[in-house]
Formats: sequence, C-alpha cells, structure tokens
Amino acid sequence: MNNYILKNENAIYYECEYSCDNVIFLKLGEESFFITDARYTVEAQQEVQNTQVIEAADLIAEAIKIIKKSKIKKIIFDGNDFTFNTYNNLIAKLDIKFLNQTNFSQEKRVIKTEAEIEILSKAAKLGRKGFKDLAKYIRKNGLNQTEKFLHFKAIEKMSQLGDLELSFDPIVAINKNAAKPHALPTNKKLSKGDLLLVDAGVKYKRYCSDRTCTSVVDFEKLNFKREQRFKKKKHQKIYDIVLKAQLNAIEKARVGMKAQEIDNLTRSIIEKSGYGKYFVHSTGHGVGLDIHEYPFINSKSDLIIENNMVFTIEPGIYLPNEFGIRIEDTVAMINGKAVIL
Amino acid sequence: MNNYILKNENAIYYECEYSCDNVIFLKLGEESFFITDARYTVEAQQEVQNTQVIEAADLIAEAIKIIKKSKIKKIIFDGNDFTFNTYNNLIAKLDIKFLNQTNFSQEKRVIKTEAEIEILSKAAKLGRKGFKDLAKYIRKNGLNQTEKFLHFKAIEKMSQLGDLELSFDPIVAINKNAAKPHALPTNKKLSKGDLLLVDAGVKYKRYCSDRTCTSVVDFEKLNFKREQRFKKKKHQKIYDIVLKAQLNAIEKARVGMKAQEIDNLTRSIIEKSGYGKYFVHSTGHGVGLDIHEYPFINSKSDLIIENNMVFTIEPGIYLPNEFGIRIEDTVAMINGKAVIL
Repeated sequence: MNNYILKNENAIYYECEYSCDNVIFLKLGEESFFITDARYTVEAQQEVQNTQVIEAADLIAEAIKIIKKSKIKKIIFDGNDFTFNTYNNLIAKLDIKFLNQTNFSQEKRVIKTEAEIEILSKAAKLGRKGFKDLAKYIRKNGLNQTEKFLHFKAIEKMSQLGDLELSFDPIVAINKNAAKPHALPTNKKLSKGDLLLVDAGVKYKRYCSDRTCTSVVDFEKLNFKREQRFKKKKHQKIYDIVLKAQLNAIEKARVGMKAQEIDNLTRSIIEKSGYGKYFVHSTGHGVGLDIHEYPFINSKSDLIIENNMVFTIEPGIYLPNEFGIRIEDTVAMINGKAVIL
Repeated sequence: MNNYILKNENAIYYECEYSCDNVIFLKLGEESFFITDARYTVEAQQEVQNTQVIEAADLIAEAIKIIKKSKIKKIIFDGNDFTFNTYNNLIAKLDIKFLNQTNFSQEKRVIKTEAEIEILSKAAKLGRKGFKDLAKYIRKNGLNQTEKFLHFKAIEKMSQLGDLELSFDPIVAINKNAAKPHALPTNKKLSKGDLLLVDAGVKYKRYCSDRTCTSVVDFEKLNFKREQRFKKKKHQKIYDIVLKAQLNAIEKARVGMKAQEIDNLTRSIIEKSGYGKYFVHSTGHGVGLDIHEYPFINSKSDLIIENNMVFTIEPGIYLPNEFGIRIEDTVAMINGKAVIL
C-alpha cells in the first residue's frame, strides 16, 4: 500500500525536495500532490520533484477532493502529525480507512543516503566554523559579558551573521547554569576560570548540525577543542569522565549493535565513576532534517544500528547548583564504525 | 462546567502565570494542576499562581491518574491543541466525556485586562525602540548590505542584543521582495532610493508587539515614521493609498462595530483606488500572548468589537514583481475608540 498523507514540513521536504509552512502532501499510488496556498505556489512549482502543485485556499477541502477522485480505499497518516481537528475534518468527509502509523516518515529517513551524509558533513563543518568564530569573539570581547549577550553572539557567529539558519536556539551556560540540561541564558557574567557550555548547530540545505562543547574560560586561549585544562580540580575530574565516556562510545560503536548497547558505552563509564545518577538523559538522538529524529540512542531501544545512520553521542554529568559538563558530536556509521561528522 | 485540559503554552500561562514547553494543565472544578517534568518543577513551584505543581515523567499517565481521582464526568479540550495521538492516549483510558471546544482559551483572552494592556503598551514601546535603533544602524551602515544581513541586524536591534525575545522572525524586504507578504530574506543589496519593508515585534512579559513600516531608503535620513517621501512616483502613490486606508480604520473604528466593518474601513479605500485585488490579506489580527489571536479583523467576521480588545490594523498593496507596501500598528480599543499602542 502506497497511499499516505503528510503535514510535517520536513517529512514533505524528504518526499519532494521542497516544503513550506502551509501544505498538505498526498501520495496516492504513483501520484504525488503538493497542496498549498497562493503564497507558495510559484516557488513550489520551480522546486518540487515528481509532484503536482495544487493551489488552494482550503487545503483540507482540496485534499478531500483529490482523495475522492483517486478512489483509494486506505491511507496512512501519522497521529503525531495531525491535530485532532485536522484528522476529524478529513475523516468526516471521506469513506476510506485511515491507518495511524506514528513516526512513519522518521522511519523512512533513519538510514541516510550518501548524498544526505555529504550534506550533513557540510552542515557539521559550517557548525565548526561557527564555534571557532564564537571562541575568537569570546577571547577578545567575552570578559564580563552576560550569558544573554553571549547567547546572542552565539546566534550571530553560528549563523554567519544571518546567512545560515540555526538547527535550534543555542544553549550558552556558565558554571551553575550548565547544570541544567536546557538552560535559559541569564544575566550572569563571564569571568576567567569559569566553565562555559555551548550547544549549537546550523542548517545546510535544511539538514542540521549538532555539537556541544564544555570549555574552561581563559581569555587568552579559550577554544572549543576536546583538550581542556580547567582551573578547578572538580571541573577537570568530571570533564575527564564525560570525555572518556564519549570517546568510548565513538570508538566502540558498531553496526549490528542495539541502540541501548551504544547508550551503555557511555553510561557504564559514568556509572562506574559513581556519577550515574547525574547523567539524566539518553546518550543521543538521530540528526537529519529534524534536529531530533530516529535513531534514539537510549537505554531501552532495541533498534539495530546500521550503516548510514547519523546520530549524536552526548554524555553529560550535571551536578545541581555546581556545574554541568556535556560533550557532544554527531557521528555517521560508515563501514561499520562511527565517524565524527 | 469548569473542567478543562490544556497543552498550549500560552493558554497555560494565561491560567497560572507560568508555562514551559512540556506541560499539561488541568482545571478540575476549583482545583488546578500543572503537570511537568523534573526540568521545570523548581521554577514552576516558584512561579505558578493558585495551582499545584506535579512532577511526572509521563505527563499523560499522570493527567489520567488525577482525572480519575477527581471523579469528573466531562472535560473541555481544544481540538487544535491536541494531536490525534495525545487525544487518543487520553480517551482510551478514561470513561468520561471529552468536549471539543476549539479556540477555547483564545476566546477567554480576547478582552484584555488593564494590566495586560499596560504590558502590551510596554511591549509596543520596546518594539519602537528596536525600529529606531535599526533605522540608525541602516543610516550609518546599511548601504550595499544584503537583505539577509539586514534581517540579522533587525533581530539584533529589535532584541536589544538578545535581551528581549522576538514576537516572530522579522521580515526585511527590499523592492520586489516586499511584494511577497511573507518574504524570506535574499542576497539583494540595499541601495539609495529603494523601498524597504520591515515587519517586526518583541515580547515583554510574554506579550507581543507587532508593527510594520515601509520606508524610502535615504542613507542620510531613513526613518520608520509615517511620513515618507519616496523617490519613485508609483511608490508614493501606493504608499498614500495604504496610509489613507490605515488612518481611516484607526480614526473610525468603534466599539460595537463588527470586525468585518473595521476590515471594510481599510478595504473600501483600497478598492476605490482600484487596487482592491492587490490587498491579498485581512486587515488585522488580535495580539496578546499569541502573535496571532482573537479578534481576527477580516471581511467575514461578525464578531462585535469591544473595549479592551487589542489588534493590528495593517492594510497592504502588493504589486507582483514590482513592490509592496504595508503599514501596520497595533491598537487597543479604549473608551470606544482605537488607540495606537
């Protein structure tokens, strides 16, 4: 059965190489339809691949018309992709079977093509350039700047002054604030010897990069490299544990493992060090058109890791009211092993 | 009946003065519950008003538990606020009646309190400061800068270097690109005599500002004021029509009118001038916690305008492949009339 209906922007981009924020996509056997409003039809007609562009004011009414005409009996949808109202407005007027296949598109996208991996590599490279530019800025001008201001500078440097879209709102957190895995920037000012966590990424051809660095603040030589020499012993101790956990997973991850085995490659190191309860999230997540997609690398997943899957490895230790350390890279499984993008 | 379940972040903020991106809010008779995960419970406990904070890993399971315990028979939800899956995961385990009341929260929020209008005024004032700062920047440094770069500078200046959140991604469009009501920034460079459209807003205490200015580019005196002297006759002609339409609506809008009558105050002027078919959107939308909320000021709405409603008045004329003009202010209905915030 090859009939489905999509609303998610990235799911639709994957089907036809174009998308926008008001569209219904239909695949009915061999035919594809991109139903959108007058704002997008010109661009859509130029960009979509193997798909008919249909202009409509009421997208749902138009979808119903096309589905009726096609005489199909069943259609797949994703129950996370449709609001209750959208679903109801469709089924009420159609005498066909709707099959809820949750995460239908993400499942299709879990193994990347060579072309996608090339794009993701380029996104990662552009992300690295952003981190370098941010480090340079902080070395020169970071002293006494607030987290809020540095957060804004992270947006400026990562985006190359607005040229690139960001994968997500960057996290910039100093000391205590880094102990919150999803810290919001505050008015806390940056000083020498601080610990600075930056989690950021950019998009290239709609594909995301994702990376986290935790660094010691030294205004002469601050950088976002792996080797960090913290002023405080406890910072260094925790950093070394997280780094060991991350490198262990990158080195030992293999095609054929379950996702939970890769999770365990980081978790076991942190647990052995006695900080297991401070590693409060999973080891990683897939990266592609969505910043969080399949495969999810957590302690429960039985998913078998295959070549051309792309995901993050990002262990962390978060000591409440003290500080937090996270080290994250995005890897692709190539020839059986993990390669950092 | 006073039982409802909310997922929308702004709808929940309206109930209890705090919100976050992973929460279910329950109102069961006199009792309110804010169900969230461990990342948010500390802050939630400090901020929520008259509401119990409940920490849970599985928010839906927890909501089911609380609803069962309460022994209620019926509960209101908003069919736009719930995905098909979330709705199904709830009803499958509950033997009560779910009443779909679409836009339930927006209806409650359509008439602002004095305190809300004060916050919206302050947001508007901060937005004006951003526009002024952007004008100053462009006068000094705007020559030959791309739309993309100016778009980034709009984010910088509107947000006061990251200090304020933005209501939405700003629109910065030169000449032809301004003919698209939702233009994306390009590499087109700014020159003297160009027409520049900027649509932007900021948030203050989570409430939005929204304003659009269309200006002539003159690097000595560019500004975002109403009075504009364009170099090209056609620019000026269209600008004057849009301005006349906007001022007509601001002057003549009255409490007791239907929303469609206010829409007609702008539309009739543009139609009389012969450009009716180039005014491709409605006159305005409500502004509050959401950037687009009730009341919608369009040609079909029978909604009666009341004191303390807040909405935009933003007529526009878009000449494809030539240029577009839009002039937008946010107004509050005070003592029967529209007052620009």
